[in-house]
Amino acid sequence: MSRLARLQAALEEPLLVTNLVNVRYLTGFESSNVAIFVEPERTRLFTDFRYASAARRVDGVETVEIERNLLAGIARKLDGRVGFEAATVTYAGYETLRGGSLELVPRRGLVERLRAVKDELELDRIRKAAAISDRVFERLAAERFIGRAERELVWRIIELFHEEGADEPGFDAIVGAGPTGSVPHAHPGDRPIGPGETIVIDLGARLGGYTSDCTRTFATGELPGRLREAYEVCRRAQQAGLDAVRAGVAGRDADAAAREVVEASPFAGRFGHGLGHGVGLEVHEAPNLRPESEDVLEPGNVVTVEPGIYLEGEGGIRIEDLVVVTEDGCEILTRFTKELVSVD
Amino acid sequence: MSRLARLQAALEEPLLVTNLVNVRYLTGFESSNVAIFVEPERTRLFTDFRYASAARRVDGVETVEIERNLLAGIARKLDGRVGFEAATVTYAGYETLRGGSLELVPRRGLVERLRAVKDELELDRIRKAAAISDRVFERLAAERFIGRAERELVWRIIELFHEEGADEPGFDAIVGAGPTGSVPHAHPGDRPIGPGETIVIDLGARLGGYTSDCTRTFATGELPGRLREAYEVCRRAQQAGLDAVRAGVAGRDADAAAREVVEASPFAGRFGHGLGHGVGLEVHEAPNLRPESEDVLEPGNVVTVEPGIYLEGEGGIRIEDLVVVTEDGCEILTRFTKELVSVD
Repeated sequence: MSRLARLQAALEEPLLVTNLVNVRYLTGFESSNVAIFVEPERTRLFTDFRYASAARRVDGVETVEIERNLLAGIARKLDGRVGFEAATVTYAGYETLRGGSLELVPRRGLVERLRAVKDELELDRIRKAAAISDRVFERLAAERFIGRAERELVWRIIELFHEEGADEPGFDAIVGAGPTGSVPHAHPGDRPIGPGETIVIDLGARLGGYTSDCTRTFATGELPGRLREAYEVCRRAQQAGLDAVRAGVAGRDADAAAREVVEASPFAGRFGHGLGHGVGLEVHEAPNLRPESEDVLEPGNVVTVEPGIYLEGEGGIRIEDLVVVTEDGCEILTRFTKELVSVD
Repeated sequence: MSRLARLQAALEEPLLVTNLVNVRYLTGFESSNVAIFVEPERTRLFTDFRYASAARRVDGVETVEIERNLLAGIARKLDGRVGFEAATVTYAGYETLRGGSLELVPRRGLVERLRAVKDELELDRIRKAAAISDRVFERLAAERFIGRAERELVWRIIELFHEEGADEPGFDAIVGAGPTGSVPHAHPGDRPIGPGETIVIDLGARLGGYTSDCTRTFATGELPGRLREAYEVCRRAQQAGLDAVRAGVAGRDADAAAREVVEASPFAGRFGHGLGHGVGLEVHEAPNLRPESEDVLEPGNVVTVEPGIYLEGEGGIRIEDLVVVTEDGCEILTRFTKELVSVD
């Protein structure tokens, strides 16, 4: 059954899909200004002049060229009870839609729920993207770190992704050395990396629209005892997270399994983010693995398992794998070693 | 007067700023999860654990660390009449805010209006970013095009931006050769570029947060007569657009000045987008220069002037400068030649 047909089967009323990634997922069509209107027997694609000729080549949809303000045009063309994507349409967009004669029903996550379960084509692309990031880590591990700035390494990662065949980086790589790495989302800076530091490297490749996501933490030579200990705790927490992931497990329970390891250690309270998130066309998508998540894992979910320990001013540690959820566990897609790798 | 103070002076009620670029403009703080609440005498910055320690170093705001779902936390903490950014807050976010005891007032463009007029610091960064893109065009013009794929040139542009000192590309460069260039927003492909084609190259550098934006159209050797003629018409239309830009002129009138040239030519109807747009922290921002624009140009606006002619299946032409609007005209920031450059 096609993706559009599966969506059609799940709808209580026709749905206006304005999330561009959802449109791409359902139709294969990429554009900065497109919306589709999905009815039980028919799908119309709305776009403007700039994209109309490409849109006419999309299978299974009727293309309607309208003005650049798509929502204004759509509000004039449609009527009746219509679902819209409440997490995408802005309040201003809602006001525009409301200007027509539509009876608007806010809906959430209808397409995202389909996207969370990957098909074989998608898994194939994600596996290949993960293999590219493995090769990038192998090549990075052979390079010199001491004396180079985080920003230099960020550029080196971009070059390596290109050389290893990624379409592009899946997201801006994070390189957090020493104190920079001690906050989960620091900006790479110009300070030269010194000896005895941890370097958190979080990167992913994009291939055929799909992203990989992997984090490893390197060490420039011998680490202070506390950072060594934190690495081992993070490693055990990550393994506990992997052991917990399987179909039927709640995202919050997988999170708890890893979090318990950190909370029972001297680093209690230093794992300040969720255990993981879904990955696919976007680097953050459903399902979520964190304390407040309502999601339950399903076979075919692709999620990260990434505990971290952040010691402000000292250094950070994060170890992240990308995995496919299966009936009885998970398949790990990111294969680069999780032993602490010492670099020069 | 600081940016925050100028905003405070313009507000009818306290404003919740959730647009991340607007937050950055007002406070200098960059994060994927931050909002500020601007009152006449006080500004609070809301963020989560991951960004809180960096946020505490921001001048002029009180940082409040709350849960990751910022709008839910904010709805509990605030009350009274509060403006919100209707073009940024999603309908789902609006429902979350509405769950508290706020009296919500949708507002549009309050910060964007300030951002549209650049100060000297901003102009300095944009000038430098434009100079970088000029150097990238100079170096590209010396390279071989025939036999290379559009995608190869896109990568080459990324390398050149790095070598010329950009922080990163300002946006994904467009390289549209031959038929690819005949639609305004085509994806670069793998077909080798041949002789006698136009190649539309639209690129920009990012430097210190600010973007440049420049398009030139190259030719691989002698062009068919119709494309040569289209280039000359586009060139004249671009000059007419530049001649029309000055403080006090309506965006739609600047557009009309350039559009008339195309409409009076054999290429009537082939200029299927607006003349230009503001550029700054974002590559598309206020003001707009297009037929349906309500904007009037002000001194300090930075806008593009970029007519195009698109001949489906044959080739495309676009010539784009980035300019600063002045009292009596404009200052052109992009200096690479607009003569038709022939490449090998």
